[in-house]
Amino acid sequence: MIAKLILDKKREGHALGTAEIRDFIAGFTRGEIPDYQMSALAMAICCRGMTARETADLTAAMKESGRCLDWPMATADKHSTGGVGDKLSLVVQPLAAACGTAVPSLTGRGLGLTGGTADKLETIPGYCASLSLDAFQQVVGDVGVSMTVQTDEITPADRRLYALRDVTGTVASIPLIVASILSKKLAEGAHALVFDVKCGAGAFMKTREEAAALAHALVDGARAAGRKAAALVTDMNAPLGFAVGNANEVAEALAILRGARTEGRDIDLCIELAALMVSLAQDRPLDDARQMCRDRLADGRAYAKFAAMVAAQGGDLEAFAARMAQPTFKFRIQAMKAGRVAAIDAEKVARVALSLGAGRLTAGDRIDPRAGVTLAVQVGARVGTGSPLATLEKSSGPDGLEKAAAELYKAFDIRPEAAEPESLILERIA
Amino acid sequence: MIAKLILDKKREGHALGTAEIRDFIAGFTRGEIPDYQMSALAMAICCRGMTARETADLTAAMKESGRCLDWPMATADKHSTGGVGDKLSLVVQPLAAACGTAVPSLTGRGLGLTGGTADKLETIPGYCASLSLDAFQQVVGDVGVSMTVQTDEITPADRRLYALRDVTGTVASIPLIVASILSKKLAEGAHALVFDVKCGAGAFMKTREEAAALAHALVDGARAAGRKAAALVTDMNAPLGFAVGNANEVAEALAILRGARTEGRDIDLCIELAALMVSLAQDRPLDDARQMCRDRLADGRAYAKFAAMVAAQGGDLEAFAARMAQPTFKFRIQAMKAGRVAAIDAEKVARVALSLGAGRLTAGDRIDPRAGVTLAVQVGARVGTGSPLATLEKSSGPDGLEKAAAELYKAFDIRPEAAEPESLILERIA
Repeated sequence: MIAKLILDKKREGHALGTAEIRDFIAGFTRGEIPDYQMSALAMAICCRGMTARETADLTAAMKESGRCLDWPMATADKHSTGGVGDKLSLVVQPLAAACGTAVPSLTGRGLGLTGGTADKLETIPGYCASLSLDAFQQVVGDVGVSMTVQTDEITPADRRLYALRDVTGTVASIPLIVASILSKKLAEGAHALVFDVKCGAGAFMKTREEAAALAHALVDGARAAGRKAAALVTDMNAPLGFAVGNANEVAEALAILRGARTEGRDIDLCIELAALMVSLAQDRPLDDARQMCRDRLADGRAYAKFAAMVAAQGGDLEAFAARMAQPTFKFRIQAMKAGRVAAIDAEKVARVALSLGAGRLTAGDRIDPRAGVTLAVQVGARVGTGSPLATLEKSSGPDGLEKAAAELYKAFDIRPEAAEPESLILERIA
Repeated sequence: MIAKLILDKKREGHALGTAEIRDFIAGFTRGEIPDYQMSALAMAICCRGMTARETADLTAAMKESGRCLDWPMATADKHSTGGVGDKLSLVVQPLAAACGTAVPSLTGRGLGLTGGTADKLETIPGYCASLSLDAFQQVVGDVGVSMTVQTDEITPADRRLYALRDVTGTVASIPLIVASILSKKLAEGAHALVFDVKCGAGAFMKTREEAAALAHALVDGARAAGRKAAALVTDMNAPLGFAVGNANEVAEALAILRGARTEGRDIDLCIELAALMVSLAQDRPLDDARQMCRDRLADGRAYAKFAAMVAAQGGDLEAFAARMAQPTFKFRIQAMKAGRVAAIDAEKVARVALSLGAGRLTAGDRIDPRAGVTLAVQVGARVGTGSPLATLEKSSGPDGLEKAAAELYKAFDIRPEAAEPESLILERIA
């Protein structure tokens, strides 16, 4: 039996052939290779690894398990490995589109500590984050940017394998992570791919070394598949920006797009990511692309793209403003000593937001759109005794707010002195 | 979810706790842990290994998945890891019983290149090799020896796991092999266990190092479970004795038990294995046990035990003699040059016997009881041009005999000179 020979080969640490990988994944997609063989292969890959060539073959096999899109214009997409308060896509994607790069962005829902862009967008009343692929292509063509969850037609092998990896302890493997991320992005068809690989307390990759390895593997894999690619390894020890939740994150993105806040390490990172997309997709010098992004953010054209996308997908920003004006149950925490914010633990903040109802523990859980944490300070801020640190919020009632507040206190490290925070960008793979 | 945490732990190469192993196997036995999680754990064990303590815990967990027997008298059993022409159990078990050690022996059926003792015994008309556990205990009590296939009541976890390992490339792992072999033997209840671990062309373990590692692990595991144990690492490059098949192997065993052949490396190994069983079970010096075994083989009491067991399990040795007298389709091969037999490749001989119908490629295949190869020479024999080398035999018709004969020639290495063959026993773990 061929599947067994392939399992023997990988168990012994040998590289699998292109046809072996293609046939195994094709058999799995058709249901001919049962879950117990797929999970054994996933574990063998976790333990024995894969070469760059094998990873590229696995990515291609998973990409080809479903429909693949193609675009007539210059297209780019950004993928983040997921962070706490990571609403950057809401700014970056319309910003790149405002610079003339079309952005077909298939996105995900949140699970566990990581929020999902689709969940955030769905807090805008009427917004459809589950377009058909035809409607998705229409919006990208008309507006220049669309964000929707991937449909069942895209990489069905990845969806089945991901569900299996989640319950068989086979998530932590760079070849499997690369094949999962990249197969979707290749099927989506963007010509240029920019990866934001996060590391630190609030990220899947805890160390910079692991994150850099993943970033290199993603860029190499994308290039092996004929795409332009770059990656940034970025710090995810503190939440990104102020808001951690869903509706509050959209509100923060809108504030940035409207120019209500113009400074911050998160905004610098947004500009850098969008500039990389534009530079790669349109073959422009990075400095030019960076300047163009700053201009488009400042002149309101990035906001206009976002508003046009929301309208095209049925969303109503006035109704969103009304939702934000509705009362919720809130609890504010304050500094109990004066000093400087040396660190804000992203994982602790995420756990508090999750406990308030901002996330899902299992795929079927419902999200409270208004639940979350909104920080009053960023790392580096000076605080006095009694200065606000953060607000906890939920709409279902006051239960659990005080307990969550006590937990949230633990996320703040306030010291007499602390160094000026450095750039979020730790490493560039370009 | 607990299964996932256990999978994470083993994937990272950490040792699992006693309770973790027990709960995982118990969950698998109850059907609560699905095959895809069990196969992922099996692959992680293949890749990361297990400590002696973990292996003992896995063995105990699998043993406890079913019924466990207990015996009031001194009992011993011999387990062979399987070889070509390995009919030694048919001699060893009644021989040990003739020395006063009861032998409750749960045995297996053949698959692939390895024949099964149960299949061989079933060529004796009427012999029931699938006794209930109650009948098995009765025969052991009345006769002192019984050989039957393990029932569904014994180690059900092992049966399910073994089927899964077979199709997920997770057979080759010493902890998994030890747990599979030992859990059955511990459940069977014998107080002393002797392992014949084969290595070479015709064995699962190809190198002496692998075989010695398995032998040590089996002895350590058995002792950790409170049993007396010893092991021999033995050579399996050439077939054991002359007959490779089923009925012809029983005929050869009967010839040895009746004293029709008294010399040979295979007979020396039979005496050594039986002597170890008797020595361990009855706490006798090995030299005494060895002499007793030689006497019991020579005085016909071992044969009498075998005949009594066959009768107690419904078998008819006269009908077996009649079966052996029936005509079959035969083809004899002869030496094409003079010299000395330097080697007979056990794997090649096994493949020929399998092609004639002596074995199973899949568990559902039917065996031709008379099919097989009977060698005319052993390693070390001097042959002249035209001397007989072997006879191929099958009962279903002459098709394929000539082609098989051409293959069988390739198993013989005849040289002008060759060294005297050494003992089959390569190493002792006692």
